[in-house]
Amino acid sequence: MELAQALIAGNRRALARSISIAETGGTAARELLSAIYAHTGRAHIVGITGSPGAGKSTLVNALALHWRRTHQTVGIIAVDPTSPFTGGAILGDRIRMQPLGGDTGIFIRSMASRGRLGGIAHATSDAIDLLDAAGFDIILVETVGAGQSEVEIASAAHTTMVIEVPGMGDDVQAIKAGILEIADIFVVNKADRDGADATVRQLRAMLHLGGPPRDGWEPPIVPAVAMRDEGIANVAAAVERHRHHLMSTGQKMYRERARAKREFELLVQETALEQVRAQLAEQGWEALLTRLAAREIDPYTAARTLLTRD
Amino acid sequence: MELAQALIAGNRRALARSISIAETGGTAARELLSAIYAHTGRAHIVGITGSPGAGKSTLVNALALHWRRTHQTVGIIAVDPTSPFTGGAILGDRIRMQPLGGDTGIFIRSMASRGRLGGIAHATSDAIDLLDAAGFDIILVETVGAGQSEVEIASAAHTTMVIEVPGMGDDVQAIKAGILEIADIFVVNKADRDGADATVRQLRAMLHLGGPPRDGWEPPIVPAVAMRDEGIANVAAAVERHRHHLMSTGQKMYRERARAKREFELLVQETALEQVRAQLAEQGWEALLTRLAAREIDPYTAARTLLTRD
Repeated sequence: MELAQALIAGNRRALARSISIAETGGTAARELLSAIYAHTGRAHIVGITGSPGAGKSTLVNALALHWRRTHQTVGIIAVDPTSPFTGGAILGDRIRMQPLGGDTGIFIRSMASRGRLGGIAHATSDAIDLLDAAGFDIILVETVGAGQSEVEIASAAHTTMVIEVPGMGDDVQAIKAGILEIADIFVVNKADRDGADATVRQLRAMLHLGGPPRDGWEPPIVPAVAMRDEGIANVAAAVERHRHHLMSTGQKMYRERARAKREFELLVQETALEQVRAQLAEQGWEALLTRLAAREIDPYTAARTLLTRD
Repeated sequence: MELAQALIAGNRRALARSISIAETGGTAARELLSAIYAHTGRAHIVGITGSPGAGKSTLVNALALHWRRTHQTVGIIAVDPTSPFTGGAILGDRIRMQPLGGDTGIFIRSMASRGRLGGIAHATSDAIDLLDAAGFDIILVETVGAGQSEVEIASAAHTTMVIEVPGMGDDVQAIKAGILEIADIFVVNKADRDGADATVRQLRAMLHLGGPPRDGWEPPIVPAVAMRDEGIANVAAAVERHRHHLMSTGQKMYRERARAKREFELLVQETALEQVRAQLAEQGWEALLTRLAAREIDPYTAARTLLTRD
C-alpha cells in the first residue's frame, strides 16, 4: 500500500492524509491501519487531561519544545470531543502552538470524528497508531477533561498526566475519585498562583486516602508554570521515570494488552454496525428506525435478528 | 416475564432491580428491555447538563418538587461517567435530594456501568426506557457536563437543558460551540450572583451568532436561583413549551427516531462484542490480546475474520 509505505518512510503529507482517512473511518481506514500495525509499538504515548482553563495546550507546547531540545520527535493529537455535530475540531486555540511550526520533528493535529461510526475514540486510537508507525518517539494526546474522555485517554495511553490548577472548587473534588484512578502523574500548573501549595497538599492527601500505590507506582505531583516554561524539565523527568517503571516491572506489556483490547473492541463494534447497515441498505434502515420509534418492534429483537449467523 | 409485569404495574422494587440488571447488561438486560419496550414512548425525557458546580442537583431537586406539586411523577437518573473503574456511582451528593424521599411519585437513581460492555451510555438509555415503562411522566437525566456525555444526553433526551452560572471563563466559552448545538433551554443558575446579566447577554449573543433558530425553536435563557427555589416555575414552563413545540411541529417523531437509532446502534455493538467474546471463549480471548499486543496480528484483520459470516 503506497500511502502506508510513504507514512512509514516519514512522509508528513502522507501522515496528514492518513489521519484524515482515520477520521472518516470505514474500509479505507481499516485497510490502512492494518497495513501499518506491525510498525507500531515503539512510541511512548502520553495522555494529558484536565479541566478547561488548566493550561493543557500551553503545557503540551512547552513539553514538546523540551523534548525537541533532547532530540526526540513529538506527535501531538488534540482531541476535541465537544462537537461531533459540526464535524470540525473547535480547539481553535492552536495559536500558542506557533513556536512549534516549521520543525518536522513535531507534528500537531486536532482530531474530529467526521461522523465516523466508531466515534472520536476510535479515530484518536487510529491516529496514535499512525503517528507511532510514522516514527515519532513521543505521542502527546491532549483531551478536555471531565467524564468519559479521561477514562478513554487513560486506556489509550502509557502515561496519563492530569493537570490541576490552584483554587479548585468542591465539586471538582467530587470528580477526583475517578481521576485518582487514571493519573500516573499530576501536574499542578499555574503554580505561581495563590493556593498552589494547598492544591499539592490536597492531591497528596487524596492519593494517600486511596491506599498504597497501585502497581508500585506513587503518582508524583509536579508543580509547573507552563506559560513561563518553569518546571517543564521536572514534568518530562516524571514521564521518563514512569516510562522506565512500566518497562522494568513488565507493566508495559500489560498496558499494551489493555490498549489492544480497547482497539479491537472498538473495531468489532464498528465493523458489526457497518455490516448491519450494509445488510439493511438505506431504505431498510430508514424503515427500521420508523418501526422502532413507533414501538412496532423492539431494538433488542431487531439487533439479535440482524446479527444472527445463518 | 414476571419482573417486567411488576415494573409496568408500578412496583418500585421491581424497577430498582430492573435498573440493576440494565447496569450489568448482557442477555438478561436485553430480554427485560425487549419485554417492556412496547410500553415506552409516553414519558417526556429531559436531559440536564452543565459544569461541575453549576448546581445541577439542586435544580433537579427543585424541578422535581415543582412537578410533584402539579401531580406529575418524576424519575431521576444521575449519570456519573467519571469512574467506570470502581463500578460505583460516586455522585454521593444526593443528600440534597432528601426532601424528595418517601414520595413514590419520585424515583431517584445514580447510574454506574458495572462493567457493561456497552458502557454507561447504554445502561442509561435502558434506565430511561425502564422508567418510561414504569409510567413516570417526566424523566430527568442529570449528567456532569463537558465532552461526549453532553452529546449523548442530547441524543437520549427530548429536551436538553444546559445550566450555566455567572462568571464563566474564556475556556468555557470555547466549549460553547458544542453546547449551542445541543441546548434546547439555557438556565442561568445562581442568578443572584454578580455577572448574571452579562452571562445572559453572552449566551444570547452566541445564540444569535449561530444564525436563525434551528427547527423554529429559539432556546430560551431562563435565570434561576435553584437553592432558593426562584425561577423554577419559569424553567418548568420552558420545558412545557418545548415539549409542545416538539409535538406541534412533528419534531417529536424525529427525536424519537434519533433515540431509536442510537439505542439500536448501541445494541448492535454490544451484541456483536458478546458474540465475538463467546466465539473466542476465555482462553482464545487472552491469546488474541497477547498476539495483538505483540503485533503478531493486527486488530483489523482479527475483527474482520471473527465477524465474517460463514
